[in-house]
Parts: sequence; C-alpha cells; structure tokens
Amino acid sequence: MAFSRVCIVGVGLLGGSIGLAVRARIEGARVVGYGHRQSTLDKALECGAIDEAFTDAKLAVKNCDLVVLCTPVGLLEKMVDEIALALMPGAIVTDVGSTKRTIVAAGEAKLTKQIHFVGSHPMAGSEKRGVEFARTDLFENATCILTPTERTNVNALEKVEQFWSSLGMRTLRLSPTEHDQFLADISHLPHVIAAALVGIQQEGAIGLAGKGFMDSTRIAGGDGALWRDILLDNADNMRASITRITSELAKLQSLLSRDKSAELEKWLNDAAARREQLHRSKLKEINSD
Amino acid sequence: MAFSRVCIVGVGLLGGSIGLAVRARIEGARVVGYGHRQSTLDKALECGAIDEAFTDAKLAVKNCDLVVLCTPVGLLEKMVDEIALALMPGAIVTDVGSTKRTIVAAGEAKLTKQIHFVGSHPMAGSEKRGVEFARTDLFENATCILTPTERTNVNALEKVEQFWSSLGMRTLRLSPTEHDQFLADISHLPHVIAAALVGIQQEGAIGLAGKGFMDSTRIAGGDGALWRDILLDNADNMRASITRITSELAKLQSLLSRDKSAELEKWLNDAAARREQLHRSKLKEINSD
Repeated sequence: MAFSRVCIVGVGLLGGSIGLAVRARIEGARVVGYGHRQSTLDKALECGAIDEAFTDAKLAVKNCDLVVLCTPVGLLEKMVDEIALALMPGAIVTDVGSTKRTIVAAGEAKLTKQIHFVGSHPMAGSEKRGVEFARTDLFENATCILTPTERTNVNALEKVEQFWSSLGMRTLRLSPTEHDQFLADISHLPHVIAAALVGIQQEGAIGLAGKGFMDSTRIAGGDGALWRDILLDNADNMRASITRITSELAKLQSLLSRDKSAELEKWLNDAAARREQLHRSKLKEINSD
Repeated sequence: MAFSRVCIVGVGLLGGSIGLAVRARIEGARVVGYGHRQSTLDKALECGAIDEAFTDAKLAVKNCDLVVLCTPVGLLEKMVDEIALALMPGAIVTDVGSTKRTIVAAGEAKLTKQIHFVGSHPMAGSEKRGVEFARTDLFENATCILTPTERTNVNALEKVEQFWSSLGMRTLRLSPTEHDQFLADISHLPHVIAAALVGIQQEGAIGLAGKGFMDSTRIAGGDGALWRDILLDNADNMRASITRITSELAKLQSLLSRDKSAELEKWLNDAAARREQLHRSKLKEINSD
C-alpha cells in the first residue's frame, strides 16, 4: 500500500470526495482533513470524508505521507509556504489545481529536497460547492492529468499516478506548459464563452432561452472567485484562446452570404462531425471501463 | 373544435411530433402528411404520426383547414408557392421555421386573400432527425412564439395560438423582426459558438474534453444544411450578435490582469448570478404547469 496517512488540505467538494474515495477504496489509509473553519470540518467528519480534523495546517500535514492540496488555485502557493517546514521527510505533495505552471514551480522551489512535489489535475467536479456535495464516485472514469517536469521524482510520480488510479481515474502526463495551453482551450475558454453568452442577452431574448441555451451555458454557473484565480493564473493562454475563437467567428461571419453557402455548410458540418466523433469516443471510453 | 383536418407538410422529427400530439390531444382531428419520399410517409403512418399520406403537396393540403409547414427554413417559401392555389378558402397556414421575417413576408404576399398566414416558431426540437424520433410530448411545457404583423387576421392568430396551447405549449407574440433579433442572440449565436469551440480545438486538447465541454457544445451536433439556411436567412442579425459577443470577449480580455481582479470577479459573478436566476425561473415555469 502506497500511502497510510493522507492529508486533504481544504475539505470542499473535491477534497471531501477524495476523502470519501480514499476511505472507500484504499484499505488502511487514514484521512486527515485541514480546513480553516471548524464547522466545515465537522460536516466532513459527519459525512465520513475524513477521520481526523485540524484547523492548523502544520499539525494536519505532520506525519502524512501524502498531502493533497485542494484549496482554490489562488491559495495554493501560500499553502505550500505554510506547510513546507511541517512536512515529514519523504512526504509527497500533490494538488488538484486547474492550472499547473505556477503551483508546480512553487512546489519545486519552496519544498525541501526530501519532499517530492507532483502536480495533478483530476478533471472532475461540479458547479456545486461544499463537502455536503462530496461523492465517493466523483472521480470514477474521469481523467487525471499529471504534470511532471525534469525535476520530478519518478518514484513519487508513479505513486501519485497509482493513487488517482486507485480512485478510479485514468491518468496521463503532460508538461505544466502543455497542460495550461490545452486547458485554456478545452475548459477555461468554454467557461468564459458561456459567461459571455449569458452576459450579452437582452431582457427580451433571455426569456426565450431553451434547453440548448441552458446546456451551453450550464458551466457559467461556477464560482466567480475560483474562476478569477484560474483565469489570472492562465492569462497568457486565455488571451491566445480568445483570439483564436474570435478569428474563427470572424471567419464564420465572412461566410454569411448566399455565394458562400457551400463553405458555410461545410464549416457547420465539420464541427458537427467532430463533435459526433468526440461523443462516440467518450461513450467508448465509458464502456471500456 | 378549431381544426378538423390538419396537414403536416414535411413529416420529420418536428412534423411527426405535431402529428402524434394532434392525434393524442385533439379529438376528431384528422392528420394528413405530405412528404417527398414514400418511405418516410410509410414510417410516419406506421408510428401513428399521420392518418393519411401524400407525396403530392397540392393533394395533401386540399380540404385542410390548418396547414403546418415543417420543411427546413430554406424550402418554406417554395412550399408556399407550390400549395398556394390548392388551399381551400378560409384555410389557415402556419409554419415552424426558426426564422420568421422571410416566411411571414412570403406567406402574406403569396397567399390569396381568403387564406390566412400566421407565423409560428414552436421552440422544441432535438439534434436527432427523422419521424422515427418523433414524440407526442415534444411540445409540452415548451414555448411557441407567434409572429403576427398588422396584416395578420386576428381570428386566425387566436386559432393558431389555441392550436399550440392544445399541444401543451405556452404561447407569446413577437413581431417577425423582434423574433429574428432575439433568436439570433439566444439560439443561433449559441449554435455557431458551440461549432467554433469544437472547431478551434487542437488534437492534444480535444481528448481532454470533460462533461462541461460536452454540454456546452452539444448543440453543435445539428444538421449543417438546416443551420446554413437559418444563418443565411438571419445573416444581418447574426453579424450583429457575433460582433456583440466578440466585444464582450474583448472586454473580458482587458480584465485579465491582477490590477483588474475585482472587475474580473464581478464579470464572472454577474454572469453566474444571471444564469442561476434563469435556471430558477425555468424550474418555476415547469413546476407551475
């Protein structure tokens, strides 16, 4: 068994779900929770997400062989500072942040030589917040991206991969730079597009919203402060992503005339076919598990 | 009872669902289907969407007191030309097109004085195509927009409203111009945005698509030829909608810096709150029925 004492730093929806999954799936592993509010920790204890609770991060991580940082992206670096000297030699630290360059650089720079940092991004979640929405199966069949660098300890990397696998996830490796580029396009851009789609609606139009509009803007419902931190941490890639979709829309705009009819149809059909192919590959992924 | 013989011109998913709903909900009404392929009509007869089938539109509409044009937007005007002289005096013609200015103008210009045209847009549908996916309950709790002009016969308008109501829909009235403007923002723009979001993804990124991406691009899966016609018919409004969302994204781009952090958070929270409010009002609509 890889880990015997796992600390969850920040017991919200994600952290709580990790706790539940560890307790359900990793025999003998004890889950320690850190939170800055006792009331949250009490809820986490009550719903069985953690075995022990601490409002002092240094006390929480002490003697833990795995520490999973689950605070919002904007607080990750500060948390590394706070726990750095309290970690035991050989401990592995990972995180669940949606951006990876900043936290990986901080983890590698600020932790001592005997501590191993491995960046993780388990791609699971919900618009809901709070440990009361934590679910044991949140990670099942979802993907976790690990973001090793040339400084990453290979043994620690494999142990963290095995940890996410044991929670039911598929794992893959990307560099922090690739990760942040890809996620800007596939996750952060869709979020701001959904927000912009909601934002521009006139009063007369928004009452006409149908299922299509509701589906395509569902992700706009997320927490503003969390997304602010993600977008600021990935601002360079976000600018490039926005420029890319703006160009694509300008191209579409140029096809809105009868004499470009065939090109317009091709543009629409190409997107529909690619979406359909993606949908099929997603179904295949689920069925192959 | 308002109508005793209803002709569905174009028996696909929408037309077939109207047929099923009329037969289930309007006692004594007979449903006549027109299609250019006998095989489609056979399927429609088999699944109980229509009582009689014709491959000749003129024969189909003869003696019908309501004709519902359910062909793709690009073929509506041609269909009005085809049936104009075969309609019986007093007949009411409506349609289900997603754009309204062109068809309403054509209906009013090309039909004789004894025929009443009323534009309708029942906002229900699916990415699926074909009468085999028709559903009796497709229209329940959905909204139907009627688009009268100063030339619309008030009695015919009320009868058409009653028709959609009897299929379970809420009805509201907009001018064809307002309709096309609002729909550009709330429906046609989300479609092209979803297509663009799929289109710009690099190979490395698209494999990382999660539930959020799949939801926000679901509507990109529609039929290219149908959407080409809708976008071309509403090209002026589409240009304005694209310009509006492009400006909104430019505004967001200008907020991607630490010193604009509070404004960025507000931009995100405003959209989240508006989406949440919309979600609640949708739930209320459903529960109040």
